[in-house]
Amino acid sequence: MIDIPSMQRAGSNAVKAIIDDVIAEKLDVEKEISSSKSTFRIADLGCSVGPNTFIAMQNIIDAVQQKYQSHGFASHMPEFQVFFNDHASNDFNTLFAFLPPERPYFATGVPGSFHGRLFPDFSLDFVHSSFALQWLSMVPKELLNKNSAAWNKGRVHYASAPDEVAQAYTAQFAKDITTFLDGRAKELVVGGLMVLIMPGIPYGIPHSSSTTGLTFDFLGHCLMDMAKEGLISEVQVDSFNLPVYVASPKEMTQLVERNGSFSIERMDITQPWARVDDLSGQACTMHLRVGMEGIISKHFGTEIIDELFDRRCKKHGEFIGLLESKRNGNQLFIVLKRI
Amino acid sequence: MIDIPSMQRAGSNAVKAIIDDVIAEKLDVEKEISSSKSTFRIADLGCSVGPNTFIAMQNIIDAVQQKYQSHGFASHMPEFQVFFNDHASNDFNTLFAFLPPERPYFATGVPGSFHGRLFPDFSLDFVHSSFALQWLSMVPKELLNKNSAAWNKGRVHYASAPDEVAQAYTAQFAKDITTFLDGRAKELVVGGLMVLIMPGIPYGIPHSSSTTGLTFDFLGHCLMDMAKEGLISEVQVDSFNLPVYVASPKEMTQLVERNGSFSIERMDITQPWARVDDLSGQACTMHLRVGMEGIISKHFGTEIIDELFDRRCKKHGEFIGLLESKRNGNQLFIVLKRI
Repeated sequence: MIDIPSMQRAGSNAVKAIIDDVIAEKLDVEKEISSSKSTFRIADLGCSVGPNTFIAMQNIIDAVQQKYQSHGFASHMPEFQVFFNDHASNDFNTLFAFLPPERPYFATGVPGSFHGRLFPDFSLDFVHSSFALQWLSMVPKELLNKNSAAWNKGRVHYASAPDEVAQAYTAQFAKDITTFLDGRAKELVVGGLMVLIMPGIPYGIPHSSSTTGLTFDFLGHCLMDMAKEGLISEVQVDSFNLPVYVASPKEMTQLVERNGSFSIERMDITQPWARVDDLSGQACTMHLRVGMEGIISKHFGTEIIDELFDRRCKKHGEFIGLLESKRNGNQLFIVLKRI
Repeated sequence: MIDIPSMQRAGSNAVKAIIDDVIAEKLDVEKEISSSKSTFRIADLGCSVGPNTFIAMQNIIDAVQQKYQSHGFASHMPEFQVFFNDHASNDFNTLFAFLPPERPYFATGVPGSFHGRLFPDFSLDFVHSSFALQWLSMVPKELLNKNSAAWNKGRVHYASAPDEVAQAYTAQFAKDITTFLDGRAKELVVGGLMVLIMPGIPYGIPHSSSTTGLTFDFLGHCLMDMAKEGLISEVQVDSFNLPVYVASPKEMTQLVERNGSFSIERMDITQPWARVDDLSGQACTMHLRVGMEGIISKHFGTEIIDELFDRRCKKHGEFIGLLESKRNGNQLFIVLKRI
């Protein structure tokens, strides 16, 4: 068993190694220098409040500096400007309070949704986004229509739902990724790199077999148990759906190709930073709670949260049992270059 | 009598007219276009939480767009990116929550002191700062040393203090403006404009005769009255000094010339947006309280604030009487161009 901080450290070390490779192999330093810009601009989309975003930005800058040095361009070293982006409701005050005091970059915060435009044309050299793109801009409308085949009664996700539900999610995700890529295609300079990390599922594996799918199924079961005991109403559960999607490399490849502004430099499903069953039930539940508490309490009220996650924790053995038979990579790592 | 919102509206209309002129006359559109940049970057230094900063940024963008259009460059219209800057402790969450939804610019927040570097080299086209530069980066150290001739016993400001106190303030202000100008000289493109608005005093007028000086003298009197009545201690008053300075055009001119990176396009002492005696005692006190409550309650505790400003309000007639005999312009309006 390992704890979440160790898992995050291990995870960020693994990502650092990949980002080092990406920048060493793919960043066109000659092009950067010939453009006569003296600033290298990096955006982290969906940065939250830190500290992961600070570690990621430092890793990227270290790798860029290393590349300039190893190519004999140390005297052309750019200044770095980092744009921390998240929704306007993100706690930027906390983000700013915890900025590393000795940072090798000029820091700025950018409020707004990455499903829209955030930056001027050709103003970014590097885009990073870690575990943010799985959030849909909205729950697909059909899910809330009782007369639709996608009416998602008794569930909070598409993982074990009828095809119509999954299709509605897939369509919403495609729409969101399309606006995301359209925006970034305008904002990145030609040759600029984009690293996207998100939950993923190998093509051909059913949604119900993804770690994320199973995780949300279990959350749905706990909510339905609570509804049966009268702690919440079934109507509340029926009208609640998590706006989270787990994509396959194949569908991401199709969406990038349809956009046409990027070459795919890397598209991998990898093992997660740590295997979920290396975590205790408590640590695993805590991790889930951190990510989901906000959206659940907005719908059901804060008073059900402790009870819900206690129940989830008690089901952890059962969850791991099911997961064990379905072990597969669940992290999608994508590197795109603006062409 | 007029209320504060009307005063602020009148004030921002007056400033808008001046900014329109500055941009119409001084902005080098041909140079902007020849640089092949497609983004016009504006910073507001010491922006607070709005709404004044939103009005100011909109005014600047309107004027730049107007200039491009009137010179036949409508097809070269840049995109605008606005950098809202204030200390990291500023409430950026509130600023971001109230950003105008239909703004014609990409918005970013920049936490940090404008006495240090905030932006990469040559990355700004226009700098604006309104009523922020009067804040010193610190209270001059000598003021807190009992053995110094600048020990400021029984006062909270230099306005009616011995020369040594005023000299310590003047030296600190010179140091702060020097680092401010050094930073902006690096950050502004050549030809870039900087508009600075701050409290000012005509050269040759004693500090004690400035509206700001008199305002702080009265605040000091109220605090000393409270100390005499035992509501606070005299030691507390002795160790409290407002880090605010009112500059003359002559000393600002000297500091800009010493820096050497800017031409002075305008350096005016103007009448304020509204005459203080057009305001009721209550409105005037409220205005003062908004600006000073934070720093006073940090030193004396929040519990003295109501009492202090009640006392200030009761002295308003006396204040106006003294002010009347000393009427002069008290707003310093400076336009610099990076050469």
